Amino acid sequence: MASDKQSRPKARTVRGFRDRAAGELAAERAMLDTIRRTYESYGFDALETPFVEYTDALGKFLPDVDRPNAGVFSFRDEDEQWVSLRYDLTAPLARYVAENQQFLPRPFRRYQIGTVFRNDKPGPGRYREFIQCDADTVGTASPSADAEMVMMFADTLEALGLARGDYAIKVNSRKLLDGVLEAAGLPVTGSDEIRERRGTVLRAMDKLDRVGPHGVRDLLGKGRKDESGDFTRGAELDIGQAERIVSFIAPSGAANNLESHFATIARAVEGSATGEEGLKEVRAIMNLVTASGYEHNRVQLDTGIVRGLDYYTGAVFEAQLTFPVQNEKGQTVVFGSVGGGGRYDDLVARFTGQKTPAVGFSIGVSRLLTALLMRKTTTVETAPLVVVTVFDKNDAAPAFDIVRELRAAKIRAEAYVGTGKMGDQFKYADKRGAALAIIEGPDERAKGEVTIKDLALGAELAKSVESRAAWVGNREAQFSALRTNLVAEVRRALAREH
Amino acid sequence: MASDKQSRPKARTVRGFRDRAAGELAAERAMLDTIRRTYESYGFDALETPFVEYTDALGKFLPDVDRPNAGVFSFRDEDEQWVSLRYDLTAPLARYVAENQQFLPRPFRRYQIGTVFRNDKPGPGRYREFIQCDADTVGTASPSADAEMVMMFADTLEALGLARGDYAIKVNSRKLLDGVLEAAGLPVTGSDEIRERRGTVLRAMDKLDRVGPHGVRDLLGKGRKDESGDFTRGAELDIGQAERIVSFIAPSGAANNLESHFATIARAVEGSATGEEGLKEVRAIMNLVTASGYEHNRVQLDTGIVRGLDYYTGAVFEAQLTFPVQNEKGQTVVFGSVGGGGRYDDLVARFTGQKTPAVGFSIGVSRLLTALLMRKTTTVETAPLVVVTVFDKNDAAPAFDIVRELRAAKIRAEAYVGTGKMGDQFKYADKRGAALAIIEGPDERAKGEVTIKDLALGAELAKSVESRAAWVGNREAQFSALRTNLVAEVRRALAREH
Repeated sequence: MASDKQSRPKARTVRGFRDRAAGELAAERAMLDTIRRTYESYGFDALETPFVEYTDALGKFLPDVDRPNAGVFSFRDEDEQWVSLRYDLTAPLARYVAENQQFLPRPFRRYQIGTVFRNDKPGPGRYREFIQCDADTVGTASPSADAEMVMMFADTLEALGLARGDYAIKVNSRKLLDGVLEAAGLPVTGSDEIRERRGTVLRAMDKLDRVGPHGVRDLLGKGRKDESGDFTRGAELDIGQAERIVSFIAPSGAANNLESHFATIARAVEGSATGEEGLKEVRAIMNLVTASGYEHNRVQLDTGIVRGLDYYTGAVFEAQLTFPVQNEKGQTVVFGSVGGGGRYDDLVARFTGQKTPAVGFSIGVSRLLTALLMRKTTTVETAPLVVVTVFDKNDAAPAFDIVRELRAAKIRAEAYVGTGKMGDQFKYADKRGAALAIIEGPDERAKGEVTIKDLALGAELAKSVESRAAWVGNREAQFSALRTNLVAEVRRALAREH
Repeated sequence: MASDKQSRPKARTVRGFRDRAAGELAAERAMLDTIRRTYESYGFDALETPFVEYTDALGKFLPDVDRPNAGVFSFRDEDEQWVSLRYDLTAPLARYVAENQQFLPRPFRRYQIGTVFRNDKPGPGRYREFIQCDADTVGTASPSADAEMVMMFADTLEALGLARGDYAIKVNSRKLLDGVLEAAGLPVTGSDEIRERRGTVLRAMDKLDRVGPHGVRDLLGKGRKDESGDFTRGAELDIGQAERIVSFIAPSGAANNLESHFATIARAVEGSATGEEGLKEVRAIMNLVTASGYEHNRVQLDTGIVRGLDYYTGAVFEAQLTFPVQNEKGQTVVFGSVGGGGRYDDLVARFTGQKTPAVGFSIGVSRLLTALLMRKTTTVETAPLVVVTVFDKNDAAPAFDIVRELRAAKIRAEAYVGTGKMGDQFKYADKRGAALAIIEGPDERAKGEVTIKDLALGAELAKSVESRAAWVGNREAQFSALRTNLVAEVRRALAREH
């Protein structure tokens, strides 16, 4: 243990956490800069809330127990109060708005890009620390705010280089879902039992993509046995109720015609006040979106979208990438969701007691980055690097002069600061992935020259030459240049390579 | 409590944590982008380690107790292992290098910008969460690596707009400090008692700026009573020893001449092998820095620099801003330190058992940002915003058309998405700090026009007009424009204002 001075700690990351290197970070930064610019162009302002919040402010105490939810990282502060690492960026936003509402414009629109933490079991590609990118509008119930979110989401994906047709922003409403349940004769609020059944029904609806309409029908009824033989208990609805719900979330026939889709929905929710309100809102959102030129190839009404989070109270959105990828089983599937959101009208009320309408969406940064790298709209590329070797380690000044000149010309350059000989220095330059190495030994200096070695070309030639002897004789990959022409010659060599 | 559904949580940040708004974030981002570009131009690569590390990997267990240091935020993971929020970026780097050394180029050079956490008592301007910006070179003992750090530090400050003369990078060596103690007959390693006295002596030396040479002399001897009457026990050195140390850290006469300064140091450390080694290293660093054109007005040998951290083993650096500011007491003082660093050769060895030489420096981001804002080399400025009002809330599409056109022309614009009437919308635009508001009501539309209202000019005029009646009649702050000339007219109005 740590108290034993003889034993050394093992160098390892905490499980579920990872180190990230320059290439990924550069691609991510480029992506986030584009997202940020898009949000700012819409007039959303940046906000940063802290990484640590009081657990009660996050609403993350277990019900009826004075203990934090196991899914969040929590600890006691010096004063014994429970604090937690933020779990998302929405709960801190609600805290911020409740705390500062008298100073904020109304509606208040902000974006936040930040790391959040989940104390869940890690798995392949599932980390306990990841970045979210949220935009939210607080303090207005207007469908314009929802429509703006949807359009901004679409614009963001296009700003990132995704082509029209590669994505779709799906729109639905929690009120429509509740409406169809109500219209089917199922109460949606009331006892714990009723709310629990609503949860089971929503989860079943959410599985449409994976299990298809038949599977959902089973999950709404008695239950479903999956391929592995595991049985999931169903919501115990009768056949008529299940049928009504399935034909709502997976309507037969094309839904490209908005008006006919509205009419189908109207029939499904008929008699439910909640459902009719939901339809009115969704209609307003879709009409504004369409009038603004966002057609069905960008924004789609899709009654099959559920979005898991409990706190949504109205419209819900999901951004789906529609281009094909191979899954782990080698099957071709669509890439799928890269983010979503919706209306949540109760989060600020937790603090203030006053209902405060709000709407937002969140992008899963690492999933979106994966998609962009697949689509090659973002590449992991850093500026080419020049390594300047040091011939005499007691006289590094000439090498530092060279790198200073190169940097002044906007060329990324470093002088070797290790203690190795020339061979080590070339190995170092290779390992660094440098484009060029520059040598200025006594011979070169006497002639007022430098030797420029094209490392990528050298590696290329080394593959093709037949013998070591031929390789040593091969001078193509390096050339002499006048020291006074340094910058021009380096530029020329870099241009040849790229 | 949380289990009581009737009581609501209070909306507040955890003490020592704070929210940060758009202006500060934009200024900080601009600053960090410049720093990042400078580091990358030197060939340093980005790295991001996680926010959470095993406590033993951070070296943050209390000595001889199986309990984490109170200064770090620590908690037990599910598997009962202690984990902590990172306290700095250096300990995680040491863990990373120890874990990955076979894959890394040697020397390994990386930078990291990230939030770190201190579980300390917060105070005014002292937060428990703040951003550091570090660059480090691991795996070389060459003074070239130290010199590179020093020059990069200077280049970074100039890239941020600080003028030559506004800053100085101070260089010293822990070995020189130990050397002068040894030369004065004080052992520096050995029993706990000896190491503790070395600590007392270094702390006394570190107070030169605040208490002057006399104060340091007292602190090295019997002790010192400060203005408030509080007594600090001294290191109990004899007068000759104290004198020798004081004349080393605060040499009389100008130290602008490097060679004469080296000679003074040589006398002070004479007979101490550590001191002589330190002098050799500092000489190599300063010679390379000077040969590279970094003169005394940028980089200075300063034997008064201590740098508090225990883990430094050789050269130490500190970046000081030398321009005058007023302190809380209204006195004129220099701005002071914005960062520092040095050689730490033992951090990787904690894991591997093998000494791994390393050198780095860290910038305190919020302090440097304060300095840049004072020097006005960075300003808190966001792009001007145009708010487009919505006349008929059931027909927001025309407003959305306008903002889309403006955004396509790179003008930051938002359509009002609240539910307020026109008066509320203008109030909203004011509160947002918008430059312009645009109105397209039925009258305007009939004429193919929009009304553009210059909000800043309007506020200006409102101050100067005598009566409300005169103000209402004043049309200077708003004008009509053809809808087809929208972008050009908005550009003209924005240009007039800026």
